[in-house]
Amino acid sequence: MLGAVASPRSTDPAELIEQARGGDRAALARLISIIERGGPPARAVSRVTHPRSGHAYTIGITGAPGAGKSTLTNALVTVLRAGGDHVGVLAIDPSSPFTGGAILGDRVRMGDHALDDGVFIRSMATRGHLGGLALATPEAMRVLDAAGLPWIIIETVGVGQVEVEITGSADTTVVVVNPGWGDAVQANKAGLMEIADVFVINKADRPGAEDTRHDLEQMLELGFGGADPSQWRPPVIATVASTGEGAAELWQAIGRHRAHLIERDLLVSRRTARLTDELQHIVAAKLLERARALAAGARFDRLRDDVLARRLDPWSAAELLLGDLHGGDS
Amino acid sequence: MLGAVASPRSTDPAELIEQARGGDRAALARLISIIERGGPPARAVSRVTHPRSGHAYTIGITGAPGAGKSTLTNALVTVLRAGGDHVGVLAIDPSSPFTGGAILGDRVRMGDHALDDGVFIRSMATRGHLGGLALATPEAMRVLDAAGLPWIIIETVGVGQVEVEITGSADTTVVVVNPGWGDAVQANKAGLMEIADVFVINKADRPGAEDTRHDLEQMLELGFGGADPSQWRPPVIATVASTGEGAAELWQAIGRHRAHLIERDLLVSRRTARLTDELQHIVAAKLLERARALAAGARFDRLRDDVLARRLDPWSAAELLLGDLHGGDS
Repeated sequence: MLGAVASPRSTDPAELIEQARGGDRAALARLISIIERGGPPARAVSRVTHPRSGHAYTIGITGAPGAGKSTLTNALVTVLRAGGDHVGVLAIDPSSPFTGGAILGDRVRMGDHALDDGVFIRSMATRGHLGGLALATPEAMRVLDAAGLPWIIIETVGVGQVEVEITGSADTTVVVVNPGWGDAVQANKAGLMEIADVFVINKADRPGAEDTRHDLEQMLELGFGGADPSQWRPPVIATVASTGEGAAELWQAIGRHRAHLIERDLLVSRRTARLTDELQHIVAAKLLERARALAAGARFDRLRDDVLARRLDPWSAAELLLGDLHGGDS
Repeated sequence: MLGAVASPRSTDPAELIEQARGGDRAALARLISIIERGGPPARAVSRVTHPRSGHAYTIGITGAPGAGKSTLTNALVTVLRAGGDHVGVLAIDPSSPFTGGAILGDRVRMGDHALDDGVFIRSMATRGHLGGLALATPEAMRVLDAAGLPWIIIETVGVGQVEVEITGSADTTVVVVNPGWGDAVQANKAGLMEIADVFVINKADRPGAEDTRHDLEQMLELGFGGADPSQWRPPVIATVASTGEGAAELWQAIGRHRAHLIERDLLVSRRTARLTDELQHIVAAKLLERARALAAGARFDRLRDDVLARRLDPWSAAELLLGDLHGGDS
């Protein structure tokens, strides 16, 4: 009680971030846990990490379940670590809306680097509320950034709308596909073609790899065939992540994309766009909190019963609830 | 200008719904288009359809891209039509956040029923704004319901969070998997195990079908092994949708699930929960509109620049913007 004594199990964000900068992985893990749980403690972390961040380069790895993203991340970390740099990996597990948490827990698949102090690996999930991961991911990235990690890899599961938003928060986005992976139309439908800076055909030793490359190149030709040649055109890299084959080429392609962004002053504009998105999300999330409060009371239940009995339509009921907000919001 | 003369291209919702009830498919299509576009005209449709709905039984068909959902829907419609009932099919295409629309357009795949007046088939997409499909889908279902269709099938692409929410709006949810479809852990991660009322192994003539059945049954045993035997345990049906094999068994399984819900008075509680969700979504969407307005002004840009320059953290910036809302919201 006499002054701020550093406790071994501190929850003070400023203290934890200093410990993390000094290489304390447990402090780093604790900060990410605070972010995951959300609420005022997470906001306090944000206030500490935000001014210390903006130095790390972030790489998103995304694709359909089973595409081999974790194995590829593993191989990429091996290449990166050969150069001596430290790296942080965030594996994003969108919560099941029903169980509300990650199933896999610790990343046994990343076992190659489990004993390497230069690699920090963490799975992340949130309690399934709307916008949860979209808000928590940039916060967690800032924690790793503020802790002094120069490279951050974000691995996202899935191809849904939320996942695409999360992926949009990386400087370079790698989209992983497999031989025989649907047709090009499916690729476009999922919105992945539009977000890819680099395409990877993983498991390229399997039959159909050349067809998949052909499909991707054809789609890229449609998109970039007549474009300004100085524009970035996503390269297509073949890998066999389980053996590490192609990982060095992928790392080079990421490097070329990074150089392209920096040379053309695009990195700042990308990050500005990203921050604009994040700020809009935060404002929306705060308004959603109010929506939830409105949806918890007896008046909500009464109006819902009116809608169920078809005395009132849903939009009119919502109007009545929002009318309450205007009058009585503290 | 003298009184309300029924025009052949009416946009009056009450008139359109009367035409749709009389079997006018073009009127029905026009109502769905109004719902897709959203805004006040969509709200006007809702006010007309809501009091006339609540009679249709809804079936959701969901699963990963390429699982054969459309072919299965096609086969199910064939079985259903053999009994003489009319049916509406909504195929939900989550918009790409970048192209903002459905790619496939009309459903050539449903060609078997293209000339059948007893089948109404429609693809639906929205302009990619948050909650768009989650809000539009129940509205579109009410249109088909109010038009007098006793059965509605909703086919959803993808396995993301938004898609799972949409699927939750059906009375019976069918989850479609394929032989070799990842492992059971992947199934759980995607949140599909929790929402399935019936599992289908489609393309069951391919190798690995028995392994997939074994994985699913094992997972179900974990979930239901010790449960009250009167609880519904999702059956696992094998189909080859392209030949129609197994479609009759699937239809029977859906019928058993429906009977289970009705016998145990669960249909009403399911629909109440669903409506509660919908009402919360609507309130949230209306608040989001306000968030967007806040994010469009010069003050937003100024605060964002402060955040970019790290003079201010994102959450504090959001607080300042929301402070504006309290003072100046009309």
